[in-house]
Amino acid sequence: MDRRKFLTSTVVGGGATALAAPAIAQSTTKLVMVTSWGRGLAGVFDAAQKVADNINAMSDGSLEIEVKAAGELVGAFEVFDAVSSGQADMYHAADYYFISQHPAFAFFTGVPFGMTATELNNWYYHGGGMEHHHSLGEIFNLKSFLAGNTTSQAGGWFRKEITGPEDFVGLKFRMPGLGGQVLTTMGASVQNIPGAEVYQALASGAIDGTEWIGPWADEKAGFFEITKFYYTAGFHEPAAGLSLACNLDRFNELSPSHQAMIEVASGHANLWNMSQYLYNNGAALRRLADGGVQILEFPDSVWDAFEVATQETFAQYMDDEIFKSIYDEFTVSMLDSSAWINRSISTYRRQRDRVLS
Amino acid sequence: MDRRKFLTSTVVGGGATALAAPAIAQSTTKLVMVTSWGRGLAGVFDAAQKVADNINAMSDGSLEIEVKAAGELVGAFEVFDAVSSGQADMYHAADYYFISQHPAFAFFTGVPFGMTATELNNWYYHGGGMEHHHSLGEIFNLKSFLAGNTTSQAGGWFRKEITGPEDFVGLKFRMPGLGGQVLTTMGASVQNIPGAEVYQALASGAIDGTEWIGPWADEKAGFFEITKFYYTAGFHEPAAGLSLACNLDRFNELSPSHQAMIEVASGHANLWNMSQYLYNNGAALRRLADGGVQILEFPDSVWDAFEVATQETFAQYMDDEIFKSIYDEFTVSMLDSSAWINRSISTYRRQRDRVLS
Repeated sequence: MDRRKFLTSTVVGGGATALAAPAIAQSTTKLVMVTSWGRGLAGVFDAAQKVADNINAMSDGSLEIEVKAAGELVGAFEVFDAVSSGQADMYHAADYYFISQHPAFAFFTGVPFGMTATELNNWYYHGGGMEHHHSLGEIFNLKSFLAGNTTSQAGGWFRKEITGPEDFVGLKFRMPGLGGQVLTTMGASVQNIPGAEVYQALASGAIDGTEWIGPWADEKAGFFEITKFYYTAGFHEPAAGLSLACNLDRFNELSPSHQAMIEVASGHANLWNMSQYLYNNGAALRRLADGGVQILEFPDSVWDAFEVATQETFAQYMDDEIFKSIYDEFTVSMLDSSAWINRSISTYRRQRDRVLS
Repeated sequence: MDRRKFLTSTVVGGGATALAAPAIAQSTTKLVMVTSWGRGLAGVFDAAQKVADNINAMSDGSLEIEVKAAGELVGAFEVFDAVSSGQADMYHAADYYFISQHPAFAFFTGVPFGMTATELNNWYYHGGGMEHHHSLGEIFNLKSFLAGNTTSQAGGWFRKEITGPEDFVGLKFRMPGLGGQVLTTMGASVQNIPGAEVYQALASGAIDGTEWIGPWADEKAGFFEITKFYYTAGFHEPAAGLSLACNLDRFNELSPSHQAMIEVASGHANLWNMSQYLYNNGAALRRLADGGVQILEFPDSVWDAFEVATQETFAQYMDDEIFKSIYDEFTVSMLDSSAWINRSISTYRRQRDRVLS
């Protein structure tokens, strides 16, 4: 591979007495993190910055991560190739942007009728999910970690109410990942557009509708200025994991302590980011409703059609050995987690709602 | 306060060339973490060890945490006083063990009809919960962080089926925290017993029943050998946050990078531990059922009685300004998180269960 020289500088000694304990002298490794996010884009950019800030703080300056927004070094969807080839050191993105590189990347963001964020984390940290993520990344010279999650994404913004599956025929809609392929199967004309460009596409009529993330991020994106029909629950991304992926050669050159910082800061950001969305969505939804947005749910007939089209979409990938093996383990773990959650957390929530009402 | 000298040693220089980058010379700070957990106790001890392992790995030896099980340095419930006074450097425990020090500590583990783990994290990281935890800790010379969560705890083990609230009258039951006070209000004789001692208490008849954590941890504890009636959903700990609390003077003496490691490793362990329980509970519940355990849910009449007694219990603490102010914010945030979760994740889960069935 043709790789750019890594952006690394080393400073040894000098000013040792001025440095705080424990280091009395240190070298500095600088890494560039490219992202799929516009600078400051609510939640997603925050997660990338949080990982960088925590690594920078923990390393006491010995490892410095510089975060680049989409377009500052490479484009939103070019981050994968940039890091795989060594042009950049690490990316923060949603791995389902890269299903054309390998369809199994979808599992580490979210797949139609797949795991919620909680279920994904159960599998990721304890059921072998992270090991699959590492193995898949290695094919592309990456070391990948979950480092954020938007949680269950909203169904999205439409110009008119959705009354049945036929409303998707001919609809120009923005949806990445396998979800987008499901809508294609249902007759929609699906596009993948980076977050920072979605508003303009919707305003110009280039697309009829879009999903983005959820009330808080969607409110900031301003879609309510263009359309008023908003579906809260979606089939397409019951989780939306965000990944931090390092160039594998670069990762292997790091000290074990720096490697540990990247892994631990990623896990921390995963929880911090998930909580950020869930904390902010409720109030944002109320503001949207107060501003005249209609808060809707898809009818059962549409959910049924989503499921049929999802089965067709998955069937196309089952010849791929990696996809099939991850799908099988993912599904077993999901149903297992879900059964316990239904018995415990969901039962508790149902009783709490009942006795408090 | 009368404080023991901290267990700190400093080694500067020597072997510099043999050390991996980035540090070319370093001092070592050693901290002792006392815990409320028997060595190896499923999940809870793992969370404490995970925090220590990650800090040790990230610090490249410049900060070393040694984990002590309950009884190795101080007893399970003595960790608070030990760290507050400086006898030990940090503890890992469930903060509701310390409601006699201040009742508001209950919020950072779990309270009856309170937040689930997800709701707790939303509030903790984004709604001011962590700041309340820090402020409360400061009163006792502690710096406190969430560093684990068992998630919604099971209702527990009983010698006979529970058919109504009257079954709790005179029942000798193990339940810590405000939940235990609720059962007292309902007429039970409630005891708080450290985890490592519960089996013996149940086997000897010192108690008639116990809650502990959930299927995975409860199976390892062996309660199914003694009783066969198991209630999965409970009112008492819809979350059970675990805390890492450092002696505040000791924390303030640490370098900013070491402070950051403690905070980030705690957040990582919070997610890792939560996932650990949820991942393992489903399979454990099946094994318990296969072994003859009856898997039950409390009838609505019992949930109603739990709620009435919970209101009475909370009312006793509302004169405390700190308790009242945290309770008010906690409740607003909980209802807000819950409303969004109902619209998004719960709606999705309901539709997924429907179309997959």
